[in-house]
Amino acid sequence: MGQVLNTDSQFMAQELAPLGINVYHMLTVGDNPGRLKEAILKALERADLVILSGGLGPTGDDLTKKVVADAFSLPMERSKEAEKALYERFSALGREMTPNNLQQADFPKGSLILENPNGTAPGCITESGSKAAILLPGPPRELFPMFKNKVIPYLEAKSGCRLFSREVRIFGMGESSVEYQLKDLIENQDNPTIAPYAKVGEVTLRVTARCEQLEEGAALVAPVINEISERLGDIVYSTEGVELSGVCAALLEKQDATLAVAESCSGGLLASALVDVPGSSAFFLEGAVTYSDAAKLRRLGVSPATLRKYGAVSAECAKEMALGMRKTSGADYALSTTGIAGPAGGTKEKPVGLVFVGLASSSGVYVGRLLLNGDRKRIREITVLNALDLLRRELMGFKQRV
Amino acid sequence: MGQVLNTDSQFMAQELAPLGINVYHMLTVGDNPGRLKEAILKALERADLVILSGGLGPTGDDLTKKVVADAFSLPMERSKEAEKALYERFSALGREMTPNNLQQADFPKGSLILENPNGTAPGCITESGSKAAILLPGPPRELFPMFKNKVIPYLEAKSGCRLFSREVRIFGMGESSVEYQLKDLIENQDNPTIAPYAKVGEVTLRVTARCEQLEEGAALVAPVINEISERLGDIVYSTEGVELSGVCAALLEKQDATLAVAESCSGGLLASALVDVPGSSAFFLEGAVTYSDAAKLRRLGVSPATLRKYGAVSAECAKEMALGMRKTSGADYALSTTGIAGPAGGTKEKPVGLVFVGLASSSGVYVGRLLLNGDRKRIREITVLNALDLLRRELMGFKQRV
Repeated sequence: MGQVLNTDSQFMAQELAPLGINVYHMLTVGDNPGRLKEAILKALERADLVILSGGLGPTGDDLTKKVVADAFSLPMERSKEAEKALYERFSALGREMTPNNLQQADFPKGSLILENPNGTAPGCITESGSKAAILLPGPPRELFPMFKNKVIPYLEAKSGCRLFSREVRIFGMGESSVEYQLKDLIENQDNPTIAPYAKVGEVTLRVTARCEQLEEGAALVAPVINEISERLGDIVYSTEGVELSGVCAALLEKQDATLAVAESCSGGLLASALVDVPGSSAFFLEGAVTYSDAAKLRRLGVSPATLRKYGAVSAECAKEMALGMRKTSGADYALSTTGIAGPAGGTKEKPVGLVFVGLASSSGVYVGRLLLNGDRKRIREITVLNALDLLRRELMGFKQRV
Repeated sequence: MGQVLNTDSQFMAQELAPLGINVYHMLTVGDNPGRLKEAILKALERADLVILSGGLGPTGDDLTKKVVADAFSLPMERSKEAEKALYERFSALGREMTPNNLQQADFPKGSLILENPNGTAPGCITESGSKAAILLPGPPRELFPMFKNKVIPYLEAKSGCRLFSREVRIFGMGESSVEYQLKDLIENQDNPTIAPYAKVGEVTLRVTARCEQLEEGAALVAPVINEISERLGDIVYSTEGVELSGVCAALLEKQDATLAVAESCSGGLLASALVDVPGSSAFFLEGAVTYSDAAKLRRLGVSPATLRKYGAVSAECAKEMALGMRKTSGADYALSTTGIAGPAGGTKEKPVGLVFVGLASSSGVYVGRLLLNGDRKRIREITVLNALDLLRRELMGFKQRV
């Protein structure tokens, strides 16, 4: 406990909403059989459905299945099929099967076993009367697909009302200002509802309608999304929950244009955000992390005079980086970043958080100046968002914001 | 609910352990005043200390302070100081102060107010008899420093016994195999205890001793760490909880050596992991994200014949990428990555997950072949770890593992 980020429960709450299943309590319990049992029994008292994630693995502190079996007064039973799948998986990976791994084939008797193509520990659904416990592996990359492919179909059969959601994504305004602009909409909401939440440097609004058919939900949500888009204007970059990098990728592909990036302070994060988009090789040519001055000169042709006169963190350098990358890569568009991410390196004239983002295109070069607050990681992340937004605005024909 | 990753509670459980404070329950409650109040009252019934994160912000669904005030039968009161700080912060950021932001200066009467240098919403500690509620802002970058700088000193005064922990970090063996190797140590543990947990592609063991003085704890932990290191050998890359990138950075700095990286499938993630280490400009010269074949030829001098004959995803290409980057950058060491991260692009001969990592140094060039499973993100992350481990092993004089 205290060592694994709890991304599972948030994911599940999001996924359960469209089924009309409200999550009342999400509890994290340490690896203590007594407390775990108490928590599970209490949960089954107040809810028909209890979802447990984690504790299915081969290590000694993985107790969940045993506790659920005890709670439902069921014996444990080894699944021949799960045992066979385990042996096959280990042999495919060329790994030795240690005895503790076999525990992963034991389940409360009568459980519906959920195969795990992304890991070794299968999940299971154990029912007792009107109550059910769903046991899932902890690692998000195992849990997420199992939840979508096995649990959702199981739950759909049990559930009536549905919810339909769309996400409006916003870059360039803080959460409180966004909410202030939409105050009347948010206060008068009933169906659909509008829920704001913040990510690093961004705001997302989730607009959700209760419905019987998803088409009906879509029809309820659309006018609200339109109203929000009209009020907030071009700071809305997606009304379908797409990441900023994905929006840029789609625009580039639509215009059959290519992109290259030259990074200093963002140090590979911008390239990485673009490469994260599946199919990025269609538009992304290359990136250069020109961290040292020498690399800026050699790779991008930034002039020594510019570095001497203005320094590497300057509008002039960002400009030459973008132009140099566009020229040497042959890309239609080139983005650049240079700044002081901290914690050291700041001066009075050039404080930590001073960042320049540049964009070169056939119509010339544009540089934006940013003064970001936060730690090294945050400054680098927000630099990436600003660089991407520079590109989005250019591709959309919008006025630049910074 | 369901939209914000719950990193806060895990962080706090980790931080509370050294104070001897056991976290019994961690509960996530939706933004519903009734359920929130019920949860807080129940929590105060069974615990002396309740920590709440989130819900201090300016949006309408931020209810925590009001509910705590009701639970303790205290009125809300506006803090003049917090109000002043809010106005100053908004004016420094050049942002307009909207009326809903002023709610952030309201607290249950008599609370100790915790300044928030990293955000707008201050936290507070509200006591009532022997019970206390600690209210903290939700965003991790605001909560973490407030917890360390304000809450820990408050709690230290209240707590007796302490815990001392060290983290052993391991790359190159799965969690279950690690535990199997240490089965007797883990089963016979009492003081110190050994807790394994897994990150993507890695295993960490946290060794923790209960003690009165930290020196005493350190003396209890040291021999266990030594025993673990001896059994697991050179797959242990840190016994002080340092990241693999940080270990490489320290080794490079000690040897006064420089590094450059040439990435294809990892697409900037490797450069980004290195730039994440503060002070990385001392050793990191540059990175090239040579995503297209053209970039591999032009930037790194990979030969057209190699690309024709073996393709971009090949040991030969990885070799030429590393050699080319070392030569053009002038760095002492150069790492390279090339592979198929998926989801598309795999063939029978070159499946998704096939990755080559290369390392060029004064003693020549080494290439490792990997067959990774998982999605695009995981393949890219594990590629980065393998590349870094190649460098660590070279710098430590260890035999390569892949």
